[in-house]
Amino acid sequence: MSGNTLGLLFTVTTFGESHGPAIGAIVDGCPPGMSLSEADLQLDLDRRKPGTSRHVTQRQEADRVEILSGVYEGKTTGTPIGLLIRNTDQRSQDYGNILQTFRPGHADYAYHYKYGLRDPRGGGRSSARLTAPVVAAAAIAKKWLKEQYGTEFYGYMSQLGEIEIPFKDAALIESNPFFAANADIVPQLEAYMDGLRKAGDSCGAKIEVRARNVPIGLGEPLFDKLDADIAHAMMGINAVKGVEIGSGFKSVTQRGSEHGDELHPDGFASNNAGGTVGGISTGQDLRVSIAIKPTSSILSPKESVDLDGKPITVQTKGRHDPCVGIRATPIAEAMLALVLMDHALRHRAQCGDVKHPIPSIPAARPDSVKD
Amino acid sequence: MSGNTLGLLFTVTTFGESHGPAIGAIVDGCPPGMSLSEADLQLDLDRRKPGTSRHVTQRQEADRVEILSGVYEGKTTGTPIGLLIRNTDQRSQDYGNILQTFRPGHADYAYHYKYGLRDPRGGGRSSARLTAPVVAAAAIAKKWLKEQYGTEFYGYMSQLGEIEIPFKDAALIESNPFFAANADIVPQLEAYMDGLRKAGDSCGAKIEVRARNVPIGLGEPLFDKLDADIAHAMMGINAVKGVEIGSGFKSVTQRGSEHGDELHPDGFASNNAGGTVGGISTGQDLRVSIAIKPTSSILSPKESVDLDGKPITVQTKGRHDPCVGIRATPIAEAMLALVLMDHALRHRAQCGDVKHPIPSIPAARPDSVKD
Amino acid sequence: MSGNTLGLLFTVTTFGESHGPAIGAIVDGCPPGMSLSEADLQLDLDRRKPGTSRHVTQRQEADRVEILSGVYEGKTTGTPIGLLIRNTDQRSQDYGNILQTFRPGHADYAYHYKYGLRDPRGGGRSSARLTAPVVAAAAIAKKWLKEQYGTEFYGYMSQLGEIEIPFKDAALIESNPFFAANADIVPQLEAYMDGLRKAGDSCGAKIEVRARNVPIGLGEPLFDKLDADIAHAMMGINAVKGVEIGSGFKSVTQRGSEHGDELHPDGFASNNAGGTVGGISTGQDLRVSIAIKPTSSILSPKESVDLDGKPITVQTKGRHDPCVGIRATPIAEAMLALVLMDHALRHRAQCGDVKHPIPSIPAARPDSVKD
Amino acid sequence: MSGNTLGLLFTVTTFGESHGPAIGAIVDGCPPGMSLSEADLQLDLDRRKPGTSRHVTQRQEADRVEILSGVYEGKTTGTPIGLLIRNTDQRSQDYGNILQTFRPGHADYAYHYKYGLRDPRGGGRSSARLTAPVVAAAAIAKKWLKEQYGTEFYGYMSQLGEIEIPFKDAALIESNPFFAANADIVPQLEAYMDGLRKAGDSCGAKIEVRARNVPIGLGEPLFDKLDADIAHAMMGINAVKGVEIGSGFKSVTQRGSEHGDELHPDGFASNNAGGTVGGISTGQDLRVSIAIKPTSSILSPKESVDLDGKPITVQTKGRHDPCVGIRATPIAEAMLALVLMDHALRHRAQCGDVKHPIPSIPAARPDSVKD
Repeated sequence: MSGNTLGLLFTVTTFGESHGPAIGAIVDGCPPGMSLSEADLQLDLDRRKPGTSRHVTQRQEADRVEILSGVYEGKTTGTPIGLLIRNTDQRSQDYGNILQTFRPGHADYAYHYKYGLRDPRGGGRSSARLTAPVVAAAAIAKKWLKEQYGTEFYGYMSQLGEIEIPFKDAALIESNPFFAANADIVPQLEAYMDGLRKAGDSCGAKIEVRARNVPIGLGEPLFDKLDADIAHAMMGINAVKGVEIGSGFKSVTQRGSEHGDELHPDGFASNNAGGTVGGISTGQDLRVSIAIKPTSSILSPKESVDLDGKPITVQTKGRHDPCVGIRATPIAEAMLALVLMDHALRHRAQCGDVKHPIPSIPAARPDSVKD
Repeated sequence: MSGNTLGLLFTVTTFGESHGPAIGAIVDGCPPGMSLSEADLQLDLDRRKPGTSRHVTQRQEADRVEILSGVYEGKTTGTPIGLLIRNTDQRSQDYGNILQTFRPGHADYAYHYKYGLRDPRGGGRSSARLTAPVVAAAAIAKKWLKEQYGTEFYGYMSQLGEIEIPFKDAALIESNPFFAANADIVPQLEAYMDGLRKAGDSCGAKIEVRARNVPIGLGEPLFDKLDADIAHAMMGINAVKGVEIGSGFKSVTQRGSEHGDELHPDGFASNNAGGTVGGISTGQDLRVSIAIKPTSSILSPKESVDLDGKPITVQTKGRHDPCVGIRATPIAEAMLALVLMDHALRHRAQCGDVKHPIPSIPAARPDSVKD
Repeated sequence: MSGNTLGLLFTVTTFGESHGPAIGAIVDGCPPGMSLSEADLQLDLDRRKPGTSRHVTQRQEADRVEILSGVYEGKTTGTPIGLLIRNTDQRSQDYGNILQTFRPGHADYAYHYKYGLRDPRGGGRSSARLTAPVVAAAAIAKKWLKEQYGTEFYGYMSQLGEIEIPFKDAALIESNPFFAANADIVPQLEAYMDGLRKAGDSCGAKIEVRARNVPIGLGEPLFDKLDADIAHAMMGINAVKGVEIGSGFKSVTQRGSEHGDELHPDGFASNNAGGTVGGISTGQDLRVSIAIKPTSSILSPKESVDLDGKPITVQTKGRHDPCVGIRATPIAEAMLALVLMDHALRHRAQCGDVKHPIPSIPAARPDSVKD
Repeated sequence: MSGNTLGLLFTVTTFGESHGPAIGAIVDGCPPGMSLSEADLQLDLDRRKPGTSRHVTQRQEADRVEILSGVYEGKTTGTPIGLLIRNTDQRSQDYGNILQTFRPGHADYAYHYKYGLRDPRGGGRSSARLTAPVVAAAAIAKKWLKEQYGTEFYGYMSQLGEIEIPFKDAALIESNPFFAANADIVPQLEAYMDGLRKAGDSCGAKIEVRARNVPIGLGEPLFDKLDADIAHAMMGINAVKGVEIGSGFKSVTQRGSEHGDELHPDGFASNNAGGTVGGISTGQDLRVSIAIKPTSSILSPKESVDLDGKPITVQTKGRHDPCVGIRATPIAEAMLALVLMDHALRHRAQCGDVKHPIPSIPAARPDSVKD
């Protein structure tokens, strides 16, 4: 299983470069008989696509996905689902002399030494554009999990640079370009981004993602723990530098008497675990947090060397997101959905249909979204 | 590839439960012709084993590993290496009524609903004891990477509960039971642990792991990025709740002008990336940090429910580590080594022998261990 | 790794149905830096494509392949190679009432019970049309193996129905629509096929495939033996019912004194092994033979049942190959090339570059093509 | 997934060499809650073990298997099942100068060039002794398939050298050392073997294996067809040179009007398919046939070369099976069971519980065992 495939049973294999003719994916292992159309995939693609506000890259891509196979008369057939997205707005001339330089923070240096050559147009394969087919593939997983288990996903930005974004209401998330669950803070975020853009600089962000109504029992004891596979998926997103489950790094300063989530007859009393213990889901909300580094493509000049090792100055023009975190929320949701989908099938393989908990115990008391 | 196997080419498949007759692993894909004996594996096993100080579990296990195959006349043959460690000190009576209860923070609840039954003796498969065969397997990887590329691994505790542990000198790490790179703080750590033990409580910890002299070019563009596979491996260790690469969560508040590591003719000027960009190693030191939650097995009573959903009080006796983080350093090193080993082989498969950088640029200026 | 992916390191994942909008593949793990263009793939695609003689299906497909990614300025970049072939000549009306019936010898019955629904247009995913992307992908493997090791592949039909086809000269293979290495017998084969077509019937065939200049040492001791993976690949071709390596079923009646290939200072004296012992290649020619069943789609009426279990008569019109074996030669070559490619990379991963034999022994005396 | 692991979900990873301290396996992915004890595994191990008649190797091995994990209070827990078999009767001195020579028909030459070194004791990893842990692992699969679906396996020898063995009665199979379903022919087989032994020679054999009450719908459309995975598993057995499904090579001379199995309201009318169409099981009996080459270890002298390429004469003493086919029946059954088990889980993952056919059609009319 090569490096461009995610999953063991519900697999997503992608291809494509930022400025090649097309990008796409093959989704294999989808259960048969589910209604599916391109419209089902377009919703999340549109949430992710560029050019939708002044705070993201101005590249214009319709990101229209075409389903090439695996669906017959509106139903999945169980055979691979081919997904194709044509690239339409490639301005390769913007990236002219990248082949001669190693841009700081970019994959140039690593690709150069790994492969001996690279496609410099728009970052080639290392571009965040490659998350589009993943988001499309994950929409299939989300739909199936919703229909089977009522599982739902939502993510939001919890921090932009230094600005912490208090959670107010999940209903607000889609109402602003930052995926902030908080309307009051949006003007502050906009001003912050405007300032950054003027300064020719970029910033990091923190994203929270959650899944609700997660089947109990997903994950494997060793190595392929549910949280381990989530960490793999999240750290596989461009620019992610950290992943937390539940209390995350805060658990370092917790006591055992505080951290271990007590069980009451009406459910779990807290969710420090973030929905998984021993690597296996408990039915509580899955809670994942990721750190996204500041965009490396900035106008501010930085020092580097050229292919001969001579010092040069790099200044990136082109069209870039000044904070890649702004468009990361649907991507993080997608990765979480793909991991859950894969483990739902793995669990069903080994253990048969998902078991229901003892009736007297709710699988979990849904987390307050404010906790 | 089931959930108890790590790696694609250098694979470690483990078996065993805490209090079963034996634990072990099969290591497949090891290059042939390397000198190997049980002594090579024992060193790290001894660093990890229980009962070596009053701050860890008092379970007495010699943790003697037996090599059952894959080595002929002191050399690896390229065939699978079978590793066996007999369990000797199992006091199963300590764990009598666990089957009737779900201990807070433990895997009991999740295993119960996943499998419908579980081995309660010492936590069964969810015990940290299962890291022993992994540590043994990783010693093989460490040896090969050292011989091939000069790669070296070292880890240390950077925080114990609230106590941050300033890095002083890597030479101090092995001189104290905490793997602290700092001798002065050890009395404080000991007093802290004594206090916890008296209080019947436990605490979390933070561990740093590094690899030096890492080959350039390891990792795959999408999904199986080097850092993604590191995150997977680290989050697969018992009790880990967070993983960071390089600047990690600190990068959220960094600017792009600060974060992107500049290149000078004598090498990289900083290492915010933590040794990997675009998911591929740069030759800089790999820098990984993990959060370990407080041990769930504590004397302090906690509330839970029994199999009938009736409220009960859980108080864990048995022998436990009051901070599982104390013994985690060799385990985290092991996981990092296994990921590097696997990717070194994957890289060699696709790209042939590791390339050397342009002569005028050192692959990377070694990080100051104080940074 | 789901069922529509072949290979561990050089992976081919395909999608598509016979009469959907397109078919294609993602080829992952290709070494970087190799020259590659669509013309390199078209040659074998043209050898496989339908409509080229009166003895095969009259469906007209240009089978033009488009490379969507993984190649930059004419060189492979090491990232996934996306391949797309649009379907152009679908006459779905020919297959109208297939959904109500289980055609004898077809996959209808099995798909119906596996998935609960199926795409009936042209056999959907079970159509031999799906071998087109595989042939395109394998052309990449063939090119790399040729450049690295001088490896060459050739196949030919050795039997058509009852007619055994004596091997005369490999140069004749491409000169007739049967891939017969024998020009004299072609009129007899043509008359045979004409007779079958008039009778509304079909026949089986036997195909031989060989690889020459195979690197020594490919294959794994257990399970993933080179011959085991070859058998897997060959039996994965539509309509294949048997696979032999070397002497194959003839070895049942051989004595050990006869079968074991002796080694002389100038090389192996015979090749009963077919180029692999203990599952590992010896450098001798790989010799594989496959049995292909007669086409199930025939005009002659056959009995079956409908979805209600009621007896019906099935008579297949549409456009079909009266002997699918006629177009199977390039497909079998393709599968062999993919297996060798994957194992060449696996071997390089574990053991480094392929070793050369002791100079005094030719790796193998090339088989006489007449043996 | 390295080469010493079989299966995707029900995985068997083995280790060990013929004359090392022990051999064994880790079985991962077993469904929880099934009764299992060592006695369940011993039955098939005893059918396979050496030293049970004068027609097989006289090596004495108890082949006692120890279950090291994955079972608690007599039930599988869903965690990996560790299996250990100690080697007891190793006479390594018998194999003294093998390291200097390449024995014809043996893996020596291939191992030498693949790994650069090898374990010569008893053939090391290439010994058929390594099938013992596989047989033990498969006993777990057989038990589960029997309990879930009533699936049963049986194999028998259908040809020994030139002697075809007419099938009489499956009840006779276990009554003779040849696994012949025919008592009358046993004296002839014994005389034949005695003659071979006196001549210092060996012979090949043909084995048939069948599975009955196979769930419908197992297998994947492309690449991982059920028959493709069966071919992979069978060709992975030592000394196998050919594999057939259903009519196998006989289908080359069949007409389509004859080969395609008709369906009647009471089931399939024939079984040329061998229980699988389009790579997916139909519920008919699975019918597999394998060709086993004559043992390479024979007393008769053969020519070869030494490590310096100088001509030598090889004469193998030691203790060997004069026909490895004699003990192959339980091994072939084991491989078939492992493939079915893996695909049963894969099918359950994607499609949920196995569906029942339309009530008016028996899944398949059981084959007459005489056909």
